[in-house]
Amino acid sequence: MTLTSPEKTTTEAAAPLPPADPREHLTSPVTRAALRVQQQLLAGAREYLTGEGFAEMMPPIIGPVTDPGIRGSKQVDLDFYGHKYKLMTSAILYKQASLLAFDKIFCIAPNVRMEPLETANTSRHLAEFHQIDVEMAGASRDQITGVVEALVRHSVGRAIAELPAEFELLGRDTSVFQKLLTEAFGRRTHADAVAELRSGGHPQSADAEIDWQGEVIVSENADRPFFLTDYPKGSRGFYDRESAEQPGVLRNFDLIAPEGYGELCSGSEREFDYGRIVTRMRETGENPAKYGWYLKMVREGIPGSAGFGIGVERFTRYVTGLDAAWQANAFPKLPGRVSP
Amino acid sequence: MTLTSPEKTTTEAAAPLPPADPREHLTSPVTRAALRVQQQLLAGAREYLTGEGFAEMMPPIIGPVTDPGIRGSKQVDLDFYGHKYKLMTSAILYKQASLLAFDKIFCIAPNVRMEPLETANTSRHLAEFHQIDVEMAGASRDQITGVVEALVRHSVGRAIAELPAEFELLGRDTSVFQKLLTEAFGRRTHADAVAELRSGGHPQSADAEIDWQGEVIVSENADRPFFLTDYPKGSRGFYDRESAEQPGVLRNFDLIAPEGYGELCSGSEREFDYGRIVTRMRETGENPAKYGWYLKMVREGIPGSAGFGIGVERFTRYVTGLDAAWQANAFPKLPGRVSP
Repeated sequence: MTLTSPEKTTTEAAAPLPPADPREHLTSPVTRAALRVQQQLLAGAREYLTGEGFAEMMPPIIGPVTDPGIRGSKQVDLDFYGHKYKLMTSAILYKQASLLAFDKIFCIAPNVRMEPLETANTSRHLAEFHQIDVEMAGASRDQITGVVEALVRHSVGRAIAELPAEFELLGRDTSVFQKLLTEAFGRRTHADAVAELRSGGHPQSADAEIDWQGEVIVSENADRPFFLTDYPKGSRGFYDRESAEQPGVLRNFDLIAPEGYGELCSGSEREFDYGRIVTRMRETGENPAKYGWYLKMVREGIPGSAGFGIGVERFTRYVTGLDAAWQANAFPKLPGRVSP
Repeated sequence: MTLTSPEKTTTEAAAPLPPADPREHLTSPVTRAALRVQQQLLAGAREYLTGEGFAEMMPPIIGPVTDPGIRGSKQVDLDFYGHKYKLMTSAILYKQASLLAFDKIFCIAPNVRMEPLETANTSRHLAEFHQIDVEMAGASRDQITGVVEALVRHSVGRAIAELPAEFELLGRDTSVFQKLLTEAFGRRTHADAVAELRSGGHPQSADAEIDWQGEVIVSENADRPFFLTDYPKGSRGFYDRESAEQPGVLRNFDLIAPEGYGELCSGSEREFDYGRIVTRMRETGENPAKYGWYLKMVREGIPGSAGFGIGVERFTRYVTGLDAAWQANAFPKLPGRVSP
């Protein structure tokens, strides 16, 4: 509920857990205010994206295969008339496929990831969450980060304008968004962030995503969201395109919130070449044979594209200044915890 | 693609199946036009509902228990950290719970039902589909059917106004919606429809939902959508409220499309009394012990309400005049059929 201070976010293990009783959560004025803010953020996202000509899709939530690039979490299996299906961990495969119908698409959809039990109190992990997912045929990284920036600015601006009483109740001083609303987002490379973390004594691997603690450190003194770019190849799924000029470096990015709130969004230019995708799958330990419909489609040709996914609950948490992402979900599911 | 004639809909077994190749479906001008219409219908629904003060929720897609009242289809099990969970067959339990946060709510969410294999070519069944789900605290059946009617009118009006070229391509003459747009929807009881069907030689049970064929027959000569009300108790889930004046009759309704397109929407006043819900569960063969969080919540008190769910693909099929509901889904999943 209160503005999360840097001291607090750097000891994230202290994040609160949801009430055992859903009534307590649903009737809380904080929950109501957070959901109202989230509704305005999503309405703002739809308003911006449809205004820019993006078509809204409704991707499947089950299918024969799903996104494997999900940073330590597990997929959920289910039986579909005798066939082993998965719950969607992200919409990535269907986003690329949707570009066969429309050049610019988005979806706002649920994802399920069995996160490790130890993430239950990181303040940012939910086993079930939502993403604003966008994909644009023919786009470069610069073009798609421009979409991210405009979308975030439009949505936050709308929520602030519509809901002054809710921000007041949440104790969130909306003047912290002044630079978000008026200045270009910052941009730095993964390698640069690794160097800063190491020089400060944080043992960040150069070959992996910035760890949760590292994201907090690099963002706690920022005055607006910023992009981290050029993640190393081993750290992401097969669909993030590798740079032709800098082998081993991906044409991707995360959007990191200021004030220690960490990652809001991941995105990339996408790989669309059949041979390179199969190679990348093998490099990441994926069996291409599992990806039947997807690889057939890629082999017959899909457009090059760039896209991103914004975590709805994390975005809402940042905007509301809440202690934990679960507070921005009406029926939060934490790893390992049985709840509605 | 063509306007479905009564002759065609009364022999629904002839409905086409989706192409085996998703590319063929996604690049079809018919699919693109149908999805464009669907996007306008959904935008219209959101516009109408938010304008009326309904808050948009994002309900879970997995949970310990889900809607059992799903007319012959099966639920999907999955493992959530060692606990048996279900994929949502409908949002009903979460709609009632959401009224603890807001008096008027809606959601547009996916549902998964393992429909019997023999429904794969009925033209109306998908194993994965979407619903516009609405719930309103304190509402009567008359109030909630008013919401259905206004929502459908607003959405159809918007789609027609925005997309003349798409309706032209689909061969759908929009003058068929003239009465939908200007006149009150019709209303008749389940018992009346049963009597008509029997007098016409169709063997309709008085104790069950109107069967698919019966829905076609009672709707093929209608000039606008109409409500069928007062279904018998045994035909629906425990959450449809029983009439105090007419025991055995439910305070519920379906919205039936004209021209033989059949059911678009089901809704009801809801049961909210703990004792009556437990009794109804037992009457329908459900074990109340499975409904832990839900029954605890009901016992501690939930508001009386009324609500409904509109099948998005069926609604789109009717408006576009397509042959089958799967044509209104970008990645259609038919019962028993492996596809993306």
